[in-house]
Amino acid sequence: MNKNVVNIRVRYKETDRMGVVYYSNYLVWFEIGRTELFRDSGMDYRELERTKNIFFPVIRAECDYKVPVKYDDLIRVETEIADIGKTRVTFRYLIKTDDILNASGQTCHVFVDANGKPMPIPPDVFSALSGFNALN
Amino acid sequence: MNKNVVNIRVRYKETDRMGVVYYSNYLVWFEIGRTELFRDSGMDYRELERTKNIFFPVIRAECDYKVPVKYDDLIRVETEIADIGKTRVTFRYLIKTDDILNASGQTCHVFVDANGKPMPIPPDVFSALSGFNALN
Amino acid sequence: MNKNVVNIRVRYKETDRMGVVYYSNYLVWFEIGRTELFRDSGMDYRELERTKNIFFPVIRAECDYKVPVKYDDLIRVETEIADIGKTRVTFRYLIKTDDILNASGQTCHVFVDANGKPMPIPPDVFSALSGFNALN
Amino acid sequence: MNKNVVNIRVRYKETDRMGVVYYSNYLVWFEIGRTELFRDSGMDYRELERTKNIFFPVIRAECDYKVPVKYDDLIRVETEIADIGKTRVTFRYLIKTDDILNASGQTCHVFVDANGKPMPIPPDVFSALSGFNALN
Repeated sequence: MNKNVVNIRVRYKETDRMGVVYYSNYLVWFEIGRTELFRDSGMDYRELERTKNIFFPVIRAECDYKVPVKYDDLIRVETEIADIGKTRVTFRYLIKTDDILNASGQTCHVFVDANGKPMPIPPDVFSALSGFNALN
Repeated sequence: MNKNVVNIRVRYKETDRMGVVYYSNYLVWFEIGRTELFRDSGMDYRELERTKNIFFPVIRAECDYKVPVKYDDLIRVETEIADIGKTRVTFRYLIKTDDILNASGQTCHVFVDANGKPMPIPPDVFSALSGFNALN
Repeated sequence: MNKNVVNIRVRYKETDRMGVVYYSNYLVWFEIGRTELFRDSGMDYRELERTKNIFFPVIRAECDYKVPVKYDDLIRVETEIADIGKTRVTFRYLIKTDDILNASGQTCHVFVDANGKPMPIPPDVFSALSGFNALN
Repeated sequence: MNKNVVNIRVRYKETDRMGVVYYSNYLVWFEIGRTELFRDSGMDYRELERTKNIFFPVIRAECDYKVPVKYDDLIRVETEIADIGKTRVTFRYLIKTDDILNASGQTCHVFVDANGKPMPIPPDVFSALSGFNALN
């Protein structure tokens, strides 16, 4: 089992008038987590889009908010793969500051071609991502 | 049973390089839906925060993405209350363009005071929101 | 002379921990103002991009912030054309709430083709936008 | 003379359907640049707000866009102080990728207390920021 860890400094832009980070921004951090997991796996997600015209839209996202994250906090995003099948991948994320678990979440994705038509996960992507499968 | 309906024109800012709306923005539309449901119920959410120091943070959010929303689309957000208890409220949202269901989702909220301490739902809020309870 | 006026309800997402709207969001409202000016002029900006592969990137933006805008305010964006030449267009924006001027700004744009190569303003666009030229 | 340099990985969220970064996001990067300049100077901007109730709103922002920034680019934000007086500070920013200048900009700020009343720059802030004055 393997996971990706990336640190992010919380931006002023990401806060709201309640004084904490606005809830939709956690999904942006999830995106950073999976981008870095891709990079970590040896795949370059940008190149998948650019050269192979393969896209990876989300079909479901969920997040449980436990302890608010604040401006200028240095958060840690831990990303792993909860499930990978023939046509879809589920990522699992933890958002932490020091030893506090601020939030956890999941996103589920499919692969589509340039016309938006679903396609099976390319074998090299499957192989690269499998190293981050929490079940392994 | 009652629900709130609000129309929103999709902003260029809300799109991404895949040519469709970026996934975290659906949660922003959910926020607009529940703000308008509050207004519709006779409560003013801003005044709750300003004069009573009552806040309404989200503890869970989820969204299922079905058909991508595009730039300049005029979407309809339908918001109702899926569940309301002594300390928490769950909203349910549908995002539609014409007769297409683009996405559906839920958010669960608690009430807290200015120090972030959980508190029971104030009776006038409970009463106002109950009119939008899908179970009624 | 002619200008476009559009009303926008301020989103919770647009505020920051200072309790007012975060400064970059004014540029998003400017975008809404010019989109609506286009629509008002009889041009559909989305169709320009979709069917003619003409894009309209910004080359300069500026904003003067006078009175902070707050959550749930209903702002009015007034947009007119400050200058229109053979290759570029400058829009001027006012952001108001009731009779208060909250901010003013400008953006300057060029026209480019699908390859990002600058091109002269198409005659039908020039003609449509000229109706909003503050100098007329 | 001194300047702050910070590197930022471009987020998918920051792109738009034109395939490049949406223009308001440059102002968010400017904010990161000045936050890091503050940190670099020995001041902690968050602590100014939290313990001294001093805020630092922007009164003017401008940006010249030269070469579009793309998804997953690693940009460099260079921040210095263009001018510092008794009541206001002007920051100057360069956005670069490798040896390309993508954009340049400025923001001007005043200091205000918790009630939004303008105040002179605190001597310790003046002293700390002066080390980043481009005129020195």
